[in-house]
Amino acid sequence: MKITLAEGAGGVSTARLISEVFAKHFQNPILAGMEDAALLPAEGGRIAFTTDSFVVTPLFFRGGDIGRLSVAGTVNDLLMRGATPRYLTAAFIIETGTDTETLDRIARSMAATAKEAGVIIVAGDTKVVEGNGQVFINTTGVGFVPDGLEISASRAKTGDIVLLSGTLGDHHAALLSARMGIENAIESDAAPLTAMMQALLSAGIHLHAMRDVTRGGLGTVLTELAEASEVRIELKEEALPLAPAVKSFSGLLGLPPLYMGNEGKLVALLPAEEGERALELVRSSPYGENAAIIGTVTTGEGVILRTALGGIRRVGPLVGEGLPRIC
Amino acid sequence: MKITLAEGAGGVSTARLISEVFAKHFQNPILAGMEDAALLPAEGGRIAFTTDSFVVTPLFFRGGDIGRLSVAGTVNDLLMRGATPRYLTAAFIIETGTDTETLDRIARSMAATAKEAGVIIVAGDTKVVEGNGQVFINTTGVGFVPDGLEISASRAKTGDIVLLSGTLGDHHAALLSARMGIENAIESDAAPLTAMMQALLSAGIHLHAMRDVTRGGLGTVLTELAEASEVRIELKEEALPLAPAVKSFSGLLGLPPLYMGNEGKLVALLPAEEGERALELVRSSPYGENAAIIGTVTTGEGVILRTALGGIRRVGPLVGEGLPRIC
Repeated sequence: MKITLAEGAGGVSTARLISEVFAKHFQNPILAGMEDAALLPAEGGRIAFTTDSFVVTPLFFRGGDIGRLSVAGTVNDLLMRGATPRYLTAAFIIETGTDTETLDRIARSMAATAKEAGVIIVAGDTKVVEGNGQVFINTTGVGFVPDGLEISASRAKTGDIVLLSGTLGDHHAALLSARMGIENAIESDAAPLTAMMQALLSAGIHLHAMRDVTRGGLGTVLTELAEASEVRIELKEEALPLAPAVKSFSGLLGLPPLYMGNEGKLVALLPAEEGERALELVRSSPYGENAAIIGTVTTGEGVILRTALGGIRRVGPLVGEGLPRIC
Repeated sequence: MKITLAEGAGGVSTARLISEVFAKHFQNPILAGMEDAALLPAEGGRIAFTTDSFVVTPLFFRGGDIGRLSVAGTVNDLLMRGATPRYLTAAFIIETGTDTETLDRIARSMAATAKEAGVIIVAGDTKVVEGNGQVFINTTGVGFVPDGLEISASRAKTGDIVLLSGTLGDHHAALLSARMGIENAIESDAAPLTAMMQALLSAGIHLHAMRDVTRGGLGTVLTELAEASEVRIELKEEALPLAPAVKSFSGLLGLPPLYMGNEGKLVALLPAEEGERALELVRSSPYGENAAIIGTVTTGEGVILRTALGGIRRVGPLVGEGLPRIC
């Protein structure tokens, strides 16, 4: 069935769409109340709160889909503050002409990713706009951070090492391949990093500053961390993990991996003496097998890249559109 | 300046848009952190959590704009569970070609409405899609509900009265007027009902079930409450408040006010013996001057309307598109 404006009017058709597609996959006692707002038990500590909208084209691609992205992206943002992710809202803006089968597939993927990530979807919203089958999803997440745990963009310290949890650019390369109709084996890395973070936290690693590497790429993310913490970050080019297929793909198209987006990678700045232990923990956790220590934090400002040949290059944030857009 | 895809790429242009438009208007210490997730102090009680997306055309209309709507809508959903609204996220999907002046006007309106409603905007997201100047906004809200306060769609009781906080259909009529280019004096009622709810709660009124009257109109909302509470709701047609201009407008176009949307009205089901006191409290609070007791809760099921001539008509939920869409 194709979605029409009736499904957005807030009456019987909207209720049917919600019950037959979204509620079917997301079912849990809180959502089942279908109240104006969900009520959640407080869990102690501070509440982490974050939002993200997903506008990716195409909706489905190798290694993922907009549903998996929309859950993993928001969960990862909660994790980067040390939160245990618990609850999501899911709000859909659906263009007319979208197949309900497409929505069903997206909702199923969201439910599976939520289960993997340890969250439940407790409230939602559905709007319909005129268009041609595109779907936009907003997810907003709530988690809880134990008192005393302080992970923040501004807490990186001189002497920290920079740990990256895996290869750069996979999501970006997979998306561009799909958009350009290029057949290859590159898969998006879209994934929730709940288990990886749990491994680091439960081992007592002193995480200072973290970010997940998404839109804008590692270059932009590290520039922001360096600025917020008033430190310099030095990267070793040859230490940057890159999947061979992504390396060929980005080389061919002239895309700089430092600015390509991932959707299931984190970068963590933490004390050097805990570096090897942290690396081992990440490598042993899901999605972390290609983790590497890629640099160090020093005094100064900005981000610099030491090339294999001994050169030094300044790394800035992404400027302008930069490279073919993925979101 | 017109928004381009560069503002959605997550680099320097995105950061500039955020700082020069959104952060400028929304400023508060939590947002200023620009972290992956905001950290909020817990306040005791349960956490209320709700989401809503706003896709209204035109973006500006008599009595309001998408910014005011986006804050009031989510705040009102929190209020309907008895929550004190505290924090919002704001996520923007902006079509290329949108003027930054338009975004500035929207953000200013959101900030003013948030201030009136008693909430702060603590996290945000900005995406850009190709298009023609349309803006979609998602707001997701967090509030706190004291333990022991239980307001739910399923708690209406036989003998309750039905209190409506003001005239029906104002927002719908204002929107349609703007879309159809009809010049009249009808204004949207978009408003946060924080003060009205505070008046009811601090007076100790035993609110059983509440909804704000939005998309789908009073007919749909009351049908849902009757179903969730397993009761019948009987309305007196002549008691339904309607502004004269909206009455003429809806009469002329053949629109049933029972299915027209508001954005600043609530319906409350509460004990009959508290009805007059509650009515007085609502009438004395902002946006409540035209409040009325419009019906009663009886045994049975569904919603019925007793007409001025003594007839009885069954009221169902909105079916299909129903009437010209407003969201």
